[in-house]
Amino acid sequence: MASQKSDTAMSPKITGELLRLLRQAMRNCKYFSEPIHAYIVPSGDAHQSEYIAPCDCRREFICGFNGSAGTAIITEQHAAMWTDGRYFLQASQQMDNNWALMKMGLKETPSQEDWLISVLPENSKVGVDPWIIAADQWKNMSKALTSAGHSLVAVQDNLIDVVWTDRPDRPSTQLRTLGLEYTGISWQDKITMLRGKMTERKISWFVATALDEIAWLFNLRGADINYNPVFFAYAIVGMNSIRLFVDLKRLSDTVVRDHLQLDSPRRPELSVQTFPYESVYTELQAICAALGPKDKVWICDKASCALTQVVPKAHRTPIPYTPLCLSKAVKNATEIKGMKMAHIKDAVALCELFAWLEKEIPNGNVTEISAADKAEELRSQQKDFVGLSFPTISSVGPNGAIIHYRPLPETNRTLTVNEVYLIDSGAQYIDGTTDVTRTVHFGTPSAFEKECFTYVLKGHIAVSAAIFPNGTKGHLLDSFARAALWESGLDYLHGTGHGVGCFLNVHEGPCGISYKTFADEPLEAGMIVSDEPGYYEDGSFGIRIENVVLVVPAKPKYNYRNRGSLTFEPLTLVPIQVKMMNTELLTQKEKDWVNEYHRRCREVVGVELERQGRMEALQWLVRETQPVV
Amino acid sequence: MASQKSDTAMSPKITGELLRLLRQAMRNCKYFSEPIHAYIVPSGDAHQSEYIAPCDCRREFICGFNGSAGTAIITEQHAAMWTDGRYFLQASQQMDNNWALMKMGLKETPSQEDWLISVLPENSKVGVDPWIIAADQWKNMSKALTSAGHSLVAVQDNLIDVVWTDRPDRPSTQLRTLGLEYTGISWQDKITMLRGKMTERKISWFVATALDEIAWLFNLRGADINYNPVFFAYAIVGMNSIRLFVDLKRLSDTVVRDHLQLDSPRRPELSVQTFPYESVYTELQAICAALGPKDKVWICDKASCALTQVVPKAHRTPIPYTPLCLSKAVKNATEIKGMKMAHIKDAVALCELFAWLEKEIPNGNVTEISAADKAEELRSQQKDFVGLSFPTISSVGPNGAIIHYRPLPETNRTLTVNEVYLIDSGAQYIDGTTDVTRTVHFGTPSAFEKECFTYVLKGHIAVSAAIFPNGTKGHLLDSFARAALWESGLDYLHGTGHGVGCFLNVHEGPCGISYKTFADEPLEAGMIVSDEPGYYEDGSFGIRIENVVLVVPAKPKYNYRNRGSLTFEPLTLVPIQVKMMNTELLTQKEKDWVNEYHRRCREVVGVELERQGRMEALQWLVRETQPVV
Repeated sequence: MASQKSDTAMSPKITGELLRLLRQAMRNCKYFSEPIHAYIVPSGDAHQSEYIAPCDCRREFICGFNGSAGTAIITEQHAAMWTDGRYFLQASQQMDNNWALMKMGLKETPSQEDWLISVLPENSKVGVDPWIIAADQWKNMSKALTSAGHSLVAVQDNLIDVVWTDRPDRPSTQLRTLGLEYTGISWQDKITMLRGKMTERKISWFVATALDEIAWLFNLRGADINYNPVFFAYAIVGMNSIRLFVDLKRLSDTVVRDHLQLDSPRRPELSVQTFPYESVYTELQAICAALGPKDKVWICDKASCALTQVVPKAHRTPIPYTPLCLSKAVKNATEIKGMKMAHIKDAVALCELFAWLEKEIPNGNVTEISAADKAEELRSQQKDFVGLSFPTISSVGPNGAIIHYRPLPETNRTLTVNEVYLIDSGAQYIDGTTDVTRTVHFGTPSAFEKECFTYVLKGHIAVSAAIFPNGTKGHLLDSFARAALWESGLDYLHGTGHGVGCFLNVHEGPCGISYKTFADEPLEAGMIVSDEPGYYEDGSFGIRIENVVLVVPAKPKYNYRNRGSLTFEPLTLVPIQVKMMNTELLTQKEKDWVNEYHRRCREVVGVELERQGRMEALQWLVRETQPVV
Repeated sequence: MASQKSDTAMSPKITGELLRLLRQAMRNCKYFSEPIHAYIVPSGDAHQSEYIAPCDCRREFICGFNGSAGTAIITEQHAAMWTDGRYFLQASQQMDNNWALMKMGLKETPSQEDWLISVLPENSKVGVDPWIIAADQWKNMSKALTSAGHSLVAVQDNLIDVVWTDRPDRPSTQLRTLGLEYTGISWQDKITMLRGKMTERKISWFVATALDEIAWLFNLRGADINYNPVFFAYAIVGMNSIRLFVDLKRLSDTVVRDHLQLDSPRRPELSVQTFPYESVYTELQAICAALGPKDKVWICDKASCALTQVVPKAHRTPIPYTPLCLSKAVKNATEIKGMKMAHIKDAVALCELFAWLEKEIPNGNVTEISAADKAEELRSQQKDFVGLSFPTISSVGPNGAIIHYRPLPETNRTLTVNEVYLIDSGAQYIDGTTDVTRTVHFGTPSAFEKECFTYVLKGHIAVSAAIFPNGTKGHLLDSFARAALWESGLDYLHGTGHGVGCFLNVHEGPCGISYKTFADEPLEAGMIVSDEPGYYEDGSFGIRIENVVLVVPAKPKYNYRNRGSLTFEPLTLVPIQVKMMNTELLTQKEKDWVNEYHRRCREVVGVELERQGRMEALQWLVRETQPVV
């Protein structure tokens, strides 16, 4: 799925009183030496996580909008919230009249900076919590405001927390250790690899702040954030020391202690020193105070402004992506094997779901929620299931057009034979993470629905079957997904693909497929991304076809300048509904792709369905994978 | 063509003595208070022109390489020259052993900054002429050097000029005035439009430094730079004043004086004050000394560092593209009509050329140079011909693989019926600028040549026929041009398209089609770009198919969110050789495109050939445009 969190509460949150209290706090010199004229509330936490724990849902608390991306800004007179095309509909339904929705990506929408400059009186102070704004965002915002005569100031107390009286505690779940059979490489070897890269670039210290990078580095998992098997921590790695900052209670478990060799490290340079989570700031200060003149510290420019500024500028080597992020993105053979296994199990659950839906829908008692629950139930029967990898998007008819819809009791529709059904779902298994979207009709789709579905399918195939030179960045493939839609004047307002972790976050950097040319790293063999074009007809239906795909070497006829070529291998093996296709719009090559894909689904998933004795689902699979002519 | 200047002298320039003298100047405190450890020689002039006058060819003078893009850096020990994939072969042939060729775009090639840092002793001074380095380049280079303990310093005397004893004078050609029948809008109205944009953004002054923008603004043309109808000038526009800096001798012509209303301006705010070219620096200083606290000055961040730094930072509003650049890119109805007419005349000349080549080649006395000369002769017979728009690339067999080859006596090959011939040429007519590449075989092409040609053609068609939403940036279309090549493991190492001026520079910003995601502006109706994918087999042959295309509204079946759609209309109307196509590799849609394109060539150019009585060429055109089945 193209991004996550969307408990689509359809009645707006009433925010008048909250805003009054927040504005009071903004004026209160207890929190900052002078009154604050505007206060920025980003969506992230101190780790710039995309999915966040309840205690960090500050933007949702203040405005009601709970999508995954959005920034709220409150001034004395105004309150505005910026989000992107995935969330326009949802945000407009969740926010009350106190809030202006700023639709990012539309020409007429001002940037946050421009908007602030247009509404603020001269010499204004704009406040933000330095822990939840990334260093690069701080820099850009500060520069823009300064050039217009204002200033961006760090307010140490979070002003949302000041007015959020019943804010939940920070979670501290049990840690899970992962052995070599899942990770393919020990955490000690990962540390050694990291130090190798540090040596290469003459770096003395590396500060890890992203939760999935820390989990990956130590081969540990947690459950602090829903859907993301991570835990709140920081890590600082030097050439001879490893500091891990985490709620120390979590380290009392002997399995965890053994895994980290806390009591008997094999080698001194691989001894992990543990510190309380909160002490990262002072510990980093101490490290920086002892830096030699040539010592350099690596910290991602997406790390928090607060932590980044601890490192003196002369010693700071900011990087757009950390070496961990890059290493993590390229899956090793063990991880690839695990991801493949996870996708087969996931396909078993989905084949069974669709067979069940087909049987039950005519009885009229399957709803968006019960279908999502059934999907979770079926997944949970699979080996090594841990939980979902994001909230299931289970949407019928017009709800499907809300790109990140999540069914709630007040929006819950019944599945019928008259409307298109879109289900975007995925799971965490100990061996891998899945994310798949299928769009199906249980009756007879309209010609327009089929037409749109077929354009989306053509885009999906164009990406999946693309052959491209080694070193190509994902954004260069984005237009392939859109060409068929564009030709008919259609489009979709989200990216085409994101990196997928291995029993980690369902969204991860540094590669992806998007028209936004963010600094994505070149695709290389072993990377895993999603391929998920869509089409959304507001008020009517939504279509999305998503597979998770593995970057693999391709062997075309020629090999220009010995660069080598790459292509994608689908890991997701769930049939794409032929009934929704207008096969007249498909080329022979596209039909061949569909047939070969379905052949693989039947072959690989069929064996597993048979092994598990799920014969109804097997019959469904065989029927749904008949060749298209 | 994908870029220009390439008098491919194939024997290297001997540079040992020159480098010795230059290094002497670098150490000489007459030019800078301290010795300079490295000296940067960019390719541009003080206007950051791509094509430059002989007096500005400093990089060529010092290293011998005369391609359009390249930067030389000389240290005490080393001399290195950076250029891109178009020029690897040419540069390696033109430079002697004193020079290291730095191949940009290859993974192993260090950036200029990284290379300098790796070779320089601590605390080095790196010198550059501040007039010929753009402000944004200065900023980046200075930042990188400073962070490594070095410094970038402005050396006022150009050190190349110090050792260049017979450097030519700066040209000062006669100015040509253009009436409304060519421009569609008076220079006074352009000034008023510019002031409108300045008012909108609260800008008090605009500094114009790009020669084509100044020519466009005043509806004047010159011939100071080969192939580019521009003249050396600067302009500074305020809300009530217009200052033009130009060799004053050029303004003695009464036609020019009348055009600019120098002696009797209609309205005081449209009165042009004229100053000598060299006085721009002091005049801008005087303007800046009188700025009010809120006055802002617009200057492109591609303007020279010298001129940019005259404007105090607090008053400077740097912009990636000037409003003139943007206005100039969107052609008005008069300009479009002129461009179409220019392309018809150009097609007449090329049809005649190809008919002539077909007849003459079997006699064995047509060479790359004589073919290029013939093309120029035939173009010069057309109405309002001014000159070529760039040096003709006329290349046979292996020479075709040198992307920006230009035939010279020592490289000149004879055209035969055994090798592929590539001709990339264009002209300046008073009504428009052309740029067209055709690749042909006068005998029987090999299967591999046809295969490659057909992939290139598929890419050309994929771009030309693409339908895409309003507001799409050109770089999103680049992969369409490559998909067919990629599928077979092939590629080309240059962009796919560039903006084309109207009786102005054959390369202009701010739009283009390239895998490099420079800050290109969204495409809009009225913009004109080239579509020129290629394939180059080193040592064997080169293929490129280039049309100039106009961005026009498209009317697909649907209109998502009322955004509207765009597509391209080819302005170039020269047949694409069917003999070179492997039609089995073409889809029906692609064949339809070829047939419709050829039908238009026949219809539009055929009438003109008949009117001009060029019957042999007409017969050739009719034969070459027979439908493909």
